Amino acid sequence: MNRRIGKQTVKLETKPVIIETASIAGVKEGEGPLRDTFDKILEDDSLGEKSWELSESTLQRITMRLALDKAKLEQSDVNYILAGDLLNQCIGAHYSVRDFDIPFFGLYGACSTMTESLSIGSMLVDGGFAEKVMCLTSSHFCSSEKQFRTPLEYGGQRAPSAQWTVTGAGCAVLSSKGDGPKITHVTTGKVIDKGVTDITNMGAAMAPAAIDTLTAHFSDTGRTPDDYDLILTGDLGVIGSDILVELMKDEGYDIEYKHKDCGKMIFDIEKQDVHAGGSGCGCCGSVFCGYVYRELKRRNLKRILVMATGALMNTMIVYQGESIPAIAHAVAIEC
Amino acid sequence: MNRRIGKQTVKLETKPVIIETASIAGVKEGEGPLRDTFDKILEDDSLGEKSWELSESTLQRITMRLALDKAKLEQSDVNYILAGDLLNQCIGAHYSVRDFDIPFFGLYGACSTMTESLSIGSMLVDGGFAEKVMCLTSSHFCSSEKQFRTPLEYGGQRAPSAQWTVTGAGCAVLSSKGDGPKITHVTTGKVIDKGVTDITNMGAAMAPAAIDTLTAHFSDTGRTPDDYDLILTGDLGVIGSDILVELMKDEGYDIEYKHKDCGKMIFDIEKQDVHAGGSGCGCCGSVFCGYVYRELKRRNLKRILVMATGALMNTMIVYQGESIPAIAHAVAIEC
Repeated sequence: MNRRIGKQTVKLETKPVIIETASIAGVKEGEGPLRDTFDKILEDDSLGEKSWELSESTLQRITMRLALDKAKLEQSDVNYILAGDLLNQCIGAHYSVRDFDIPFFGLYGACSTMTESLSIGSMLVDGGFAEKVMCLTSSHFCSSEKQFRTPLEYGGQRAPSAQWTVTGAGCAVLSSKGDGPKITHVTTGKVIDKGVTDITNMGAAMAPAAIDTLTAHFSDTGRTPDDYDLILTGDLGVIGSDILVELMKDEGYDIEYKHKDCGKMIFDIEKQDVHAGGSGCGCCGSVFCGYVYRELKRRNLKRILVMATGALMNTMIVYQGESIPAIAHAVAIEC
Repeated sequence: MNRRIGKQTVKLETKPVIIETASIAGVKEGEGPLRDTFDKILEDDSLGEKSWELSESTLQRITMRLALDKAKLEQSDVNYILAGDLLNQCIGAHYSVRDFDIPFFGLYGACSTMTESLSIGSMLVDGGFAEKVMCLTSSHFCSSEKQFRTPLEYGGQRAPSAQWTVTGAGCAVLSSKGDGPKITHVTTGKVIDKGVTDITNMGAAMAPAAIDTLTAHFSDTGRTPDDYDLILTGDLGVIGSDILVELMKDEGYDIEYKHKDCGKMIFDIEKQDVHAGGSGCGCCGSVFCGYVYRELKRRNLKRILVMATGALMNTMIVYQGESIPAIAHAVAIEC
């Protein structure tokens, strides 16, 4: 059966169900506006580990365990884990998943990982390859600063356009059966590079990818912003969100009153001194699996498009003068 | 339709076809025993680029272009690229794919990436989500040494158990229609960590994952080594291959006369001074998409199991004293 309905979009015939989620946030995130929507807020971002890499890995592990518990599933019920993160060679995922007896596919989509995993996961369920799939991602402020920027102890000054990597994780459990919000469409992004070289302005680097995927989604499905209660981006932040909304108008779509961005939602931008907002795989991960999933379950949201964006550079290649490619993957979800 | 036939295996109903491949190898690899089976051998491993990261990215780009040319496809014919590599944040893939107007999913499976991409790609085709998928990976000796070990100029002494990262790339084009070898089964690995901490002995770290996936494949399918003309591993090398063959006997399977390893095939181990053999995503990539695919097309091989293995650590976490988790993904292919 051909499930393709456009150049970048497939329609899922069986509408895989998101039967449960787990969302865990760090200390600072737990002081933000969404504090009441996480399943758990860390008391100590180190999680008792001796390195930030192990802290992030442990964060993924406890998020996955919580998702299994909430869904009342045994490990043997789950056919695949799809996971990734920002750390070199995705060790956040690998060092957590080694404690689970579940087949695993590792993904790298930078901050787009939450929707990359929902995209592939929902296709595996829809195609009859899996009954249950877990989609998992995380980020950690301290491991990201250490790896991508400067050691925390250095106390580097942050540019006004910089975003604050969220300490948080999200895990969604997809199922061929059950109750809950359903994934109906998957629109897969292309790698887009518009020449932005400023690594302290990820929002500007990622916005063109978001525009490309969102335009493709509307074109492929025949839908418009009016068809959605919410168009949620992952971590474009203040600057990237403005670019997206403004340039989508040039494409003929006014999304201003439908668009929200997890990076703007998770922090009180002014009071929490996070400059252009939150970022990181765990930003979309914890906000989608926390606040947004709850609103879907309560039917305050009935049909949404979730589109996480990722910047696909590493530090070395940017120091060599290359620009920053980005990607955005979108999934449509309805109750 | 439920396609699952065991805890880790799915059977593909439509048997997606590998309609074409492209295989490119570096200078040293082009002097090895498989020299006549690559589509192209580099004259200069730098490919004219100013950094090894860009060299590897360009290697992926020309391999993908060659695969499109050989398959007589336009970019618009291809629904997805699935690609990844060993570089931090998979920049080998991202900086090549940005030049293609094709939806992209980034994978991280370390040296298991070739079969991870064939696994997910064949399921996307079998499920009706794609008509054509390109599965791509690479590795590069110089970018890997720089990132994982020491700068080339340092001239570090290599341990006898160390493997030599292959400069090479492979790209396979999967299709819902057409002639060629067909993918019939996908067995997905779990992350296995048996406590090996020696980063100069990847074969030993990866062999337990290979044993786990191979045993699951036989158990799930009811097949035995007798059902295959070849059981091909990715880059276990000399040491890992010995461990695999020996310990599979304890599991009740004698694979000694069916097993070959790309890391042992691509180099003349003694004459080319590569210690325990070749490694890297491009090892399985270039050998499978070169020599092995040709043998399948000529029907010298009729039914094979291809299982690439990956070591999932990064340098930082090993310096912290953690052991090395690994994974192996297998696909069964027949003419």
